[in-house]
Parts: sequence; C-alpha cells; structure tokens
Amino acid sequence: MAAGVVTLLTDFGPGSVYVGQMHAVFAREAPGLRVIDLAHDCPFAAIEAAAYILDRSFRHFPEGSVHVAVVDPGVGGGRDVLAVRSQGHLFVAPDNGVLHAVLEDAVIRRVENRAWMSANVSSTFHGRDIMAPVAARLARGEPFEDVGPRADASPFPTGLEAEEGAIEGAVLLEDRFGNLITNVPVAYLRALGWPERDLRVRVGAAFIDDVVRTFTDVSPGVALAYVGSGEHLEIAVNGGRASDVLGLGVGGRVRVEARP
Amino acid sequence: MAAGVVTLLTDFGPGSVYVGQMHAVFAREAPGLRVIDLAHDCPFAAIEAAAYILDRSFRHFPEGSVHVAVVDPGVGGGRDVLAVRSQGHLFVAPDNGVLHAVLEDAVIRRVENRAWMSANVSSTFHGRDIMAPVAARLARGEPFEDVGPRADASPFPTGLEAEEGAIEGAVLLEDRFGNLITNVPVAYLRALGWPERDLRVRVGAAFIDDVVRTFTDVSPGVALAYVGSGEHLEIAVNGGRASDVLGLGVGGRVRVEARP
Amino acid sequence: MAAGVVTLLTDFGPGSVYVGQMHAVFAREAPGLRVIDLAHDCPFAAIEAAAYILDRSFRHFPEGSVHVAVVDPGVGGGRDVLAVRSQGHLFVAPDNGVLHAVLEDAVIRRVENRAWMSANVSSTFHGRDIMAPVAARLARGEPFEDVGPRADASPFPTGLEAEEGAIEGAVLLEDRFGNLITNVPVAYLRALGWPERDLRVRVGAAFIDDVVRTFTDVSPGVALAYVGSGEHLEIAVNGGRASDVLGLGVGGRVRVEARP
Repeated sequence: MAAGVVTLLTDFGPGSVYVGQMHAVFAREAPGLRVIDLAHDCPFAAIEAAAYILDRSFRHFPEGSVHVAVVDPGVGGGRDVLAVRSQGHLFVAPDNGVLHAVLEDAVIRRVENRAWMSANVSSTFHGRDIMAPVAARLARGEPFEDVGPRADASPFPTGLEAEEGAIEGAVLLEDRFGNLITNVPVAYLRALGWPERDLRVRVGAAFIDDVVRTFTDVSPGVALAYVGSGEHLEIAVNGGRASDVLGLGVGGRVRVEARP
Repeated sequence: MAAGVVTLLTDFGPGSVYVGQMHAVFAREAPGLRVIDLAHDCPFAAIEAAAYILDRSFRHFPEGSVHVAVVDPGVGGGRDVLAVRSQGHLFVAPDNGVLHAVLEDAVIRRVENRAWMSANVSSTFHGRDIMAPVAARLARGEPFEDVGPRADASPFPTGLEAEEGAIEGAVLLEDRFGNLITNVPVAYLRALGWPERDLRVRVGAAFIDDVVRTFTDVSPGVALAYVGSGEHLEIAVNGGRASDVLGLGVGGRVRVEARP
Repeated sequence: MAAGVVTLLTDFGPGSVYVGQMHAVFAREAPGLRVIDLAHDCPFAAIEAAAYILDRSFRHFPEGSVHVAVVDPGVGGGRDVLAVRSQGHLFVAPDNGVLHAVLEDAVIRRVENRAWMSANVSSTFHGRDIMAPVAARLARGEPFEDVGPRADASPFPTGLEAEEGAIEGAVLLEDRFGNLITNVPVAYLRALGWPERDLRVRVGAAFIDDVVRTFTDVSPGVALAYVGSGEHLEIAVNGGRASDVLGLGVGGRVRVEARP
C-alpha cells in the first residue's frame, strides 16, 4: 500500500532549517521517496489549525501516503508519538490532538521501536529524530505493526457547540488574504437545512446574511460567508481583508443560525 | 516536447497549504513529474509583478516545461483559464494579464476540457482544481489541442510610457533586501543609447546619475541604478534598503532620461 | 562519491524567485538530482548564522552531497567563489566566511573554470550563474579538480572569547519561537566541566542558573539554557519568547561561567 509519498506539516515557518533537516533524514533513509511540503506556516502550537489542515488535505494525496505533522509544543515532556492508519493513509504525529480529525476507523499505535529512530534522539526535535525516520520506514513499506504497540489517542475537544437551530464555532486560521477559516464543516450547515434554508452568520457584533457561493456574489467591500475550498465555513470581504474589516482573528467566535 | 517539469508561481505565500495541495494534485495525477516552486512570495493580486517573474524566469527551465501561475483575484467570477504555448514552453494561468509578457508568437487556448479537471471544482481554488490537473496532463505529454478551443487573451497595459529621449515606468517588486525592481527592460535603456550614452534616473524627488554595473560601483549608503539579474532596471542602495532610503515602494514612479 | 543530492542555503527569503531560478539551473543541468532546500530564512548577509546552519546540518545528508550556500553580500565585488571537499561532503560558496566551520581537513579550490558556469554571468546573482551550475557538475560526479586551482580561504573570526572558567559568545539566530541560538558549541560547556559541574549563563543583566535538558524542566514563564538540537547552547523561555522576555536578539552577548 506504500505510495512512496511523504508529506510534512509543521509550525516551523517556511524556509526553516528545521524543515531542511527533516528532508535530510528522508534523503538519507529513503532516497527514492517523494517528500512534499504540505504546509509550514501553521501558527506556532496551533494544534486545532494543524488538525484542520491535515484533515482537509490528506485525501488529495495518493492512497498510501505517509503524513507527518510536527506541531509539538510538548516535545521533550512525556507526550507519546503516535502512528495511525486511517482511510488508506498513514500518519505520524505527537499525541496532542493534531490527529484528532483523522481518527475515525483508525488503527493507532504508539511509536516505541527504538531501532526505527535516529541513533541520537535530541530532547527538542523529535520531528527530525523520531517522526521523520519512522515515516521513512513506513513509506518504504516496512510493516506498520513494527512501529510499536496498539494504543489510544488522548481525547481532544472539537471546539464546536451545537444547539437547536444553531452551531457555534471559532476562527481556526487566517490566510494570507485575510480570509478567516472556521472550524465549522459544511455538514453542520447542511444539518441546519442549508442550502434550501437560508442561514445567517454572526461574527462579533455583526451579522452576515446567508452563505453564498464566492467572493463575486457580493459587492466590493462587503463581508461574505461561504464554503471554502477546505469545505469549512469561511468569512471574507470581497476585495478586502476580513480580519481587518471585521476585527476578528484566530480564536474569534462564529455563530451560524437557521433564519426564522 | 514534454520535459517532465512543472513550475508553480503563486501569491499564496511561502509555506501555504494551498501550495501543498497543488503539489498533491501532481503527486496523484503525474507521479513522475518534477514540480518546482518558482515563487510564492508574489504580492497578493500583483498581476504585473507575477507577469515579470514568469517572463524573466521561464527560459532558465528546460524547454517543454509547463509553468502554472496562480495569481487569481477574479477566481469564481467569469474570467477564463488559458493554456498557452510560447517559445517552446507551456503556460497555464487565468486570463487576467499574468501571461501578457509571454504571448509573443504564442498559441492560446481556453481551458474547457472538463475531463481534464478535478471531479469537484471548488469556486475559490481553480489553481488546485483546474490549473494543476490540466498542467499535469500537459507535462505528461497529452496533446495541447485537447485542452480547449483557440482563443485570444484579454488585453493588458504594459505600464510603460515612452517619449522622445525618456521612458517612464514603475516599481514592480521590492525584494527582501529592499531593492526595487522596475518594469523597465534593458532594451529601453539601450534604445536611449545606453551604455554609450549616460542616463539619469529620477525616483520621486531624487536623481540617480547614470546606470552602473553593481552595488560596489558606488560608495556605501549611496543609491544606484543598475540592470538586475532579471535584465530590468533596478534601484538599490549599497549596504542599505532603497525602499527606506528613497521612500519608494511598489507602484512608485521611475523615469529614465538620456543626459543632455 | 556523488550522492546525487544538492542542498541550498540562502538569505533570499522563503518563496523567493531567486530560489526558484536556482532550482531551474539544476532541472536544466542535472535533471536526475535531488535538490533540497536546507534553509532560506537566514537573516540577510548573516554570514556567521549561515555558517552555523551549514555546519550543524550537512552531516544529516548522505555522504557525497553538495551543499550550496548563497549568503553573498559582496557579490559583484572581488571576492572569490570556493569549492571545498570536507568530511565526505562538497561545498560551494563565496569566500566570505560562510564555510569557516567546515574547513577542518578540507581541500579548498577556487572556482575558475569558465566552462562550468552559465554562458551569461550576471554581476548580482552568482548563486544562479556560477554556484548552481558548478554544484550541478559536482553532483553529477565530474572531477572536483576541474573546478579550479587549490586556494586558501580568507580568515574568519569565530566570535568566541574563552578565558579561565568562562566562555563568552553571542546570539547567532532567533528561531520562529523566539528561542535564541548562540555560537557556543556544547564542547565548550564540557570543557567547563558540564554536566558534572554546574554552570550559570549570563544574558544581558540576567542570570540563568544551570544548563538543563529541555523546556519542561523549568516552570512556565521561566528562562532556561539548554543544548539545542544543533548541539549549541540555546536560550529559551518555557511557553514564552525568550527574545521578548529577556530583551535579547541576534548579536546579544552571552557568557557562560563555571559556578564556584
């Protein structure tokens, strides 16, 4: 099932030598692999944002790809590293919630096989010294069972609050254009009756009337709610920066209601 | 003629998951390709800057490369996507001017072949859902004619104003070092008689005397005009940031005159 | 001995077209190579930081890799370009100190073979026009001797001042998390008797008591000194940004003393 593809998602920042050193491990341990940078601009320690990026992206890659997510503020403390098989893909990441969105029907193992790790394991960079070499082995097709024993993942809250006729969530990410990506999946909008039924979206003190298709469905300068390319609710301003115009950033609350 | 090389130019910002998802399409649709990040720090919606980057870069790649440029503020509106064959290379981009500098002797087709696109086309990310899969097919060597019917590109102004003995242009890009790259190609300097004849360059209220070869041709702290590695006129300050010293940024006017 | 791997270290900034154009040279001159971005976020003209990044990273790559470092504020002036063979790896960089940490037991040659460079050599971008094509030839396995004649590297100060019972150095780099990486290698701590003997670290007006293992060894908000994944002394704050909390940035002085 190995596709020979590894993806890297980190909060190291683009152009970081920490990313370069992870690539070094793959060049050394599995020269034939294709190693793809999924994203490196994830905000520091933003576990829920990383979980979203991973969940909305992994299906675009070939089945059998190995996805490594190094958003790891607890490195060097007691947290485990997990290897997960789910939906035809493999994942390697800390047990801190970054994998919570891909755990459905998953087989979870704790990474414990010392022989699969680098000879010297630093206390601050397990992405390079544990996760990359383990992912290299998995991508080369070595048995998933050899990574370590079966385990459970630590629980992680979704951050969504559903009530009758409404769902409340938060802004997960702000992209480069000032668009605000929320943690509300399109399935929750459908559960509220959308698109047959009109919705309204409250962001801070303001309301946005209805969920539209794209930017050009509203006039320049006007705020809009729409389903983004990640199939979550997003907030934008046509020709502007929603974060500035609406005064809303990562963590800001968003409430979607069925219109009476 | 396919070289097996695809390049990506976007305004998504380095490290963006949008870039990672485009790479996913190529890993899935054309695993043997070499996919190269040409640039991702293009300013948001800066079509003329993207056109410059593309034009000054594509000849460095092997003949037959496919260049994808996703600077696409009109996505989801009515603009077409074009595929262009020009000077031995292929290009895929929105019809918004980003290809205007590579259209000489070009064959232009409108991308219409639904079978070449992703099964689900989002309304906000045609780079991933249309341009990347189309580029993957072209890079695999599938016939250019199959992309869609012949078309014309929308007109796009060059932003240059030539008069007797002078040329007026603008700053296209500021690089990381504060150097200012203008839209004035070296050919216009030659048309003014340079290098046999001395020129002077007006930037804001200041004049720079003559166009020199490189930074070290002037004293530290002094502004200089020179022909950059992209063969356009650039403005810099030896050991400083021209943008700060001269108070000039993207869009700022630059005028080159033959000296009397 | 060629590994078919080239790495790129620059101060161009991530996502820069200058990086993309260097990749173009490799796609054209040596299509089978694996070209890895080691780091592109090196601060502008920060030669000592680049030297550190290179030295702490190259051993992670396969033996025979070719490492290109373009931190080159003197481009277009009289400085030479060097090719160096050291510890089973090859290096190509300007003769400005960026290679000073990898020169032990090295064979150094001055890059002079015009036939190995691009046909047109610009005066501002020798990374693309000289270093990349030379590295491509070396990575393809062409003879190191053909690059040019034997030479010496220009001297470069280490920036460390050792005295009885103490070593004084400086902050080389601030990472994305606000951690401060110093130019003090772990060997100097060992020479002071660490870890058997306790040390204390002076940063500005503050003292940090002892060198610990990792972030979680101190309480949240507390500053710590530790040996980072690059095996140099680093300064951090658990759950905070050391640069902000301690008011210390790149170039700031750090002094390590054996405790009485």
